[in-house]
Amino acid sequence: MAMGTDYAAQDCSLARALEIVGERWTLLVVRDSLFGVRRFSDFQHHLGISKAVLSQRLSALVDHGLLSRERVGGREEYRPTEILVDLWPALHALTVWGERAAPAQDGPRRVFRHEPCGGELDDHGSCPQCGTVPAAGRVVMSPGPGVVATPRPNTVSRALRAPRRLLEPIR
Amino acid sequence: MAMGTDYAAQDCSLARALEIVGERWTLLVVRDSLFGVRRFSDFQHHLGISKAVLSQRLSALVDHGLLSRERVGGREEYRPTEILVDLWPALHALTVWGERAAPAQDGPRRVFRHEPCGGELDDHGSCPQCGTVPAAGRVVMSPGPGVVATPRPNTVSRALRAPRRLLEPIR
Repeated sequence: MAMGTDYAAQDCSLARALEIVGERWTLLVVRDSLFGVRRFSDFQHHLGISKAVLSQRLSALVDHGLLSRERVGGREEYRPTEILVDLWPALHALTVWGERAAPAQDGPRRVFRHEPCGGELDDHGSCPQCGTVPAAGRVVMSPGPGVVATPRPNTVSRALRAPRRLLEPIR
Repeated sequence: MAMGTDYAAQDCSLARALEIVGERWTLLVVRDSLFGVRRFSDFQHHLGISKAVLSQRLSALVDHGLLSRERVGGREEYRPTEILVDLWPALHALTVWGERAAPAQDGPRRVFRHEPCGGELDDHGSCPQCGTVPAAGRVVMSPGPGVVATPRPNTVSRALRAPRRLLEPIR
């Protein structure tokens, strides 16, 4: 990946982060992994990208220790590691910003709640009921009022039409 | 920019965010703007990229309303708008993650404090002294123990060797 070399002169942890997740599509693969996507074909149909690009992105994430490739019931799965799960606050912050910078007509496309409290996360990822910043595994995502009316015809888009806990595998 | 079209099928605010800031180098231009960089030549020397790429990235950020191009004392400057400043929590979260995923040998490369309290921001961008999440303009950045020994020979790298409030122009 050329990016690593390009950013090498930047003595900066943001540049280090972008060396790992700054490639086109990579943060959307990370997002899907947090949403519970585990299988190559599910990533592919949800993202709508070529097998070659997806394959390269998944391998890079495995190489950097964000995903582990495992055999589950005869099928290959990509499981998120703790390093990937740690990206949740950054992904949430970018999502909040995207919602504000390019709002959907009817409101947010997705709503995130702290599971035990039911409180809707604020812009900083905190639960307003209990004041904590829940880890990804305690967050339930639901479609918001701004979601497009008809889900795209793939397993993942359909699964995401109901409230789901982050990281719960879509199978 | 091809990215917008590519991501168009993704009904997702993260994808919308990446359409605006997902191009290579763009988040580092945003970072520099938060650090106080205002002039084309300062961006160029600090980032070490070609004039053509920088020019394209700056124009795209102006088009998306993240920067405004202004004449100040006969020189052109790029000023961050509120939309850009709103990216601070996402950039901080990615920086925290990069520090953990690819740590420098001696500790963090940069340290962020809430100016009035002096408290070092936690991983969620909160000040542990007062409990608030300070806006970028109230954050002071200092070199951390993991910073490289010798700054690169350019105005911005040198300026960032002393504590500086974010958004304070480097001139």
